Amino acid sequence: MDLDVLFLGTAGSSPSPRRGLPATLVRRGGDRLLFDCGEGTQRQLMRSVVGLVELEELFITHFHADHVLGLPGMLKTFALRQREREMVVYGPRGLRRVYELLEPVIGRLTFRVRLVELEGNQELERDGYRIAAFEVDHGGPGLGYALVEDPRPGQFDPERARELGVRPGPDFGRLQSGEEVDGVRPDQVMGETRRGRKVVLTGDSAPCDMTRLVAWEADLLVHEATFLEEDAERAVETRHSTAAQAAELAAAAGVQILALTHISPRYSIAEVRREARTAFERVVVPRDFDRIEIPLPERGKPVHVPAPDRPARPEVVAP
Amino acid sequence: MDLDVLFLGTAGSSPSPRRGLPATLVRRGGDRLLFDCGEGTQRQLMRSVVGLVELEELFITHFHADHVLGLPGMLKTFALRQREREMVVYGPRGLRRVYELLEPVIGRLTFRVRLVELEGNQELERDGYRIAAFEVDHGGPGLGYALVEDPRPGQFDPERARELGVRPGPDFGRLQSGEEVDGVRPDQVMGETRRGRKVVLTGDSAPCDMTRLVAWEADLLVHEATFLEEDAERAVETRHSTAAQAAELAAAAGVQILALTHISPRYSIAEVRREARTAFERVVVPRDFDRIEIPLPERGKPVHVPAPDRPARPEVVAP
Repeated sequence: MDLDVLFLGTAGSSPSPRRGLPATLVRRGGDRLLFDCGEGTQRQLMRSVVGLVELEELFITHFHADHVLGLPGMLKTFALRQREREMVVYGPRGLRRVYELLEPVIGRLTFRVRLVELEGNQELERDGYRIAAFEVDHGGPGLGYALVEDPRPGQFDPERARELGVRPGPDFGRLQSGEEVDGVRPDQVMGETRRGRKVVLTGDSAPCDMTRLVAWEADLLVHEATFLEEDAERAVETRHSTAAQAAELAAAAGVQILALTHISPRYSIAEVRREARTAFERVVVPRDFDRIEIPLPERGKPVHVPAPDRPARPEVVAP
Repeated sequence: MDLDVLFLGTAGSSPSPRRGLPATLVRRGGDRLLFDCGEGTQRQLMRSVVGLVELEELFITHFHADHVLGLPGMLKTFALRQREREMVVYGPRGLRRVYELLEPVIGRLTFRVRLVELEGNQELERDGYRIAAFEVDHGGPGLGYALVEDPRPGQFDPERARELGVRPGPDFGRLQSGEEVDGVRPDQVMGETRRGRKVVLTGDSAPCDMTRLVAWEADLLVHEATFLEEDAERAVETRHSTAAQAAELAAAAGVQILALTHISPRYSIAEVRREARTAFERVVVPRDFDRIEIPLPERGKPVHVPAPDRPARPEVVAP
């Protein structure tokens, strides 16, 4: 099952010529989950390899303008295309009130928008994984999200099954799905249960224990890094993190790879990376349109895939 | 005096990978006048040669979402920079109500936003020019805008003045500013009054008489062209124009150059241009970041200057 994270907007607060406002797309199999929707997100999607597909689910981390102002325009574009399928928007408490504020700007749509306010530790079951919301520390209602795959059954050993007298065919299938066959128990022919993958996104947050707990041994932690240590006081005041703090947290949680986002134009990428690497080696600072691919653990480590040089697709679209 | 038009967003309704939502910057001397502010305009400015400067005046043509949704984010970015200078936003009647809708999204600012509702035919006096609002036909309150320079005095003829016995120096200045000197009248030494330049922007509109009147002999007419003739019925229904209609209007008004904007991704640029050229030869379909320079009439014709290939400026900005 494919799993990757596409960075659509890696700036914080204000955009920069190169970085759009916060938006991150997680793709797993055919699922497309968008996290945050800063101004310009619909166009970032259009410019990406994914295109502006008919997203079904949007997860808002919190309601600061830089994380939500892309929503009205995106919904309007869907309506112009005569979308009919419902769209579900998740967010922390207050989501309904914020949507009511935006509603007059959004105007009439051709489809229903369903709003779901989530509490910390609430989980959404999906086919093969769940999405867990967790409270972060940004001075108001704010959620991080973790995509956690179900554990997978161990590897089936056909040689061993044959030795125990089971015939290849339907009986092999029964054993793999947990049934006993002719006195042979599944645990005799199946390897150990294999862990699923875990991707954690913090949204905006000061470094906090909850993130560290949720991110424990995650394959990928996407953590904000709005400041560097030289501005640590500003980070405390505004409930943001420094690159060093995010890296210390990643080290304590033992994640495979740390991706820093919500990058301010006041720092260079090299500076951000350098500061983070003093605490944690496996850190990347993605640019817009970069991806991180997360293979199944037995197939390799997460890989940072830089954006193709020219993300714009041909302008002429078939009618 | 320099005068040019920078196309920041040439798409209509929805953005495309290459075209942002409506925004056009007119620069005259040190003045920077922004017309419309679609989603993403602040970033388009950042990516342009101009940068996101502290704009003083914004002119809204009408209140469809694709023309105004960039305003909240841009105001917020100005506030993050601790802007103190007042910003004036002009628009048709209803401007105050629309701003009230956006206000909760905008939140607290560090500067005042002054709202000015304009009527058709209302004019704003500026130093050396005026901005005239005129009613267009888009099925609701909607204004086009014309920047009209004052006529300039004719060219002074120093040879003729000397022949008439005037001495070079302060007396030359007096003659040029309209005073009589030792019985010599200004009209004896000054050429004919020279016309100022005129730039007209329609916003969204069906072709209409008012635009044709206002655009009479304009140096540049920026007209919307949302449709081609094959979709002429849709154009009528939605009060938009086809490329052919805009071109016919430009021909009837005798403009120097016609620039078509509000381009739909359903057509190619080549198609749009081809249709317009059947009615009017001097037409361009600017891409985002293209400019049109309008020299003083005696110095040459308007010139279409394509965007530099890489509009992104260096990301690292001094703190």
